[in-house]
Amino acid sequence: MIKLVLSDIDGTITDSRRVLSSSASEQIRKAQDAGVIVSLVSGNVIPVMYTFRTYLGMKAPLFAENGGAMIDDNITQFFSMDRPRAFFRDLEKSRLAKGIMTNQWRLCSMGFEPVGPVEQEILQLTARYNVEITNSGFSWHILNVGQNKGFALHYLMERYDLRPDEVLVIGDNFNDIPMFIEGVRKAVPANAEEELKKRADYIARSGYGDGSAEILSSLESF
Amino acid sequence: MIKLVLSDIDGTITDSRRVLSSSASEQIRKAQDAGVIVSLVSGNVIPVMYTFRTYLGMKAPLFAENGGAMIDDNITQFFSMDRPRAFFRDLEKSRLAKGIMTNQWRLCSMGFEPVGPVEQEILQLTARYNVEITNSGFSWHILNVGQNKGFALHYLMERYDLRPDEVLVIGDNFNDIPMFIEGVRKAVPANAEEELKKRADYIARSGYGDGSAEILSSLESF
Repeated sequence: MIKLVLSDIDGTITDSRRVLSSSASEQIRKAQDAGVIVSLVSGNVIPVMYTFRTYLGMKAPLFAENGGAMIDDNITQFFSMDRPRAFFRDLEKSRLAKGIMTNQWRLCSMGFEPVGPVEQEILQLTARYNVEITNSGFSWHILNVGQNKGFALHYLMERYDLRPDEVLVIGDNFNDIPMFIEGVRKAVPANAEEELKKRADYIARSGYGDGSAEILSSLESF
Repeated sequence: MIKLVLSDIDGTITDSRRVLSSSASEQIRKAQDAGVIVSLVSGNVIPVMYTFRTYLGMKAPLFAENGGAMIDDNITQFFSMDRPRAFFRDLEKSRLAKGIMTNQWRLCSMGFEPVGPVEQEILQLTARYNVEITNSGFSWHILNVGQNKGFALHYLMERYDLRPDEVLVIGDNFNDIPMFIEGVRKAVPANAEEELKKRADYIARSGYGDGSAEILSSLESF
């Protein structure tokens, strides 16, 4: 029986333009009302997760910055800003990337947009700084090593004392792969990257939020 | 013909527990698709308005801190933090109030919770600091003089060159009164405070988000 759902936001409970899906948010509410713990994990920032928690009426802790920070009644920061900031400054100085609006609210990661087709060049630089780069499909993030959605998943499994087969993860893009771990149930909306479809137990018929609504409305089948 | 709708958030497009109303957000989308400019103004903070703008797919500028700051593709701060911060520190020192989580993201206002039945005592102190106090029904805010939802309304009317009768405002609580100005159309959900009902051209049959959805779905009647 699924006791915990951990879902991505962008492209998973939104549409392709990032607008929140009414059907997915309705199904999140229903799952919560049925006693399932529903949490979200995103590359976005703590005050955005604060907004989701408040205005979707969510009770579980939610995770920002790909798992690097958590909000419940308080804010918890699990990683440091030192390495992501140093790497970002180098990228900026080398004119390889520019920052994004949400950086002012970040605690332990930096978001960026590559300036031109320089992704390989950026990736090669990561080793020197001991950081990792990830892409949500909506923006690029600089993270500490070990700061990923798998970290958030392990935190929740320990906090609620859950076995892997009591957990369902939902995601669509590369930065969701770290939570697609051995033993947990894995579902993806139809728009998911091929890499995620290969790992999924279930691929929804619909894409985006409607696909995740479909998954959330049949939790008993996982 | 209504060309601009300026609406409050808490209690107006949410339910009584602050959860965003699906029907109201659906009607916001429809109004926007029909070419109406829809903006929101709240006592909440810029990154919360960033989240609404992104995840509701809103195009107009939105206002935080009761009109004190605005977000479109950039962030604009219209007032200073000096006076609200000084007043808040005094309240804290006198143990009359404690801060709220969103204060860390504020630019020109402070939120607080009175400690016990000390509201009159707090109100009497405001004159000394030349600040104003307002209540959204969900939290108390310390603002600069002139920093209110009427400021946001006037900004939008000037920006889009609109007459008062081309504007509809929607709100439910005391901090919405400054946008209930002469000549603009005024509508309230059924849960609105009596003070607002008295000033309204239209009182919806339903309360909260369903009431505002009702208002937004009949813009041609205003």
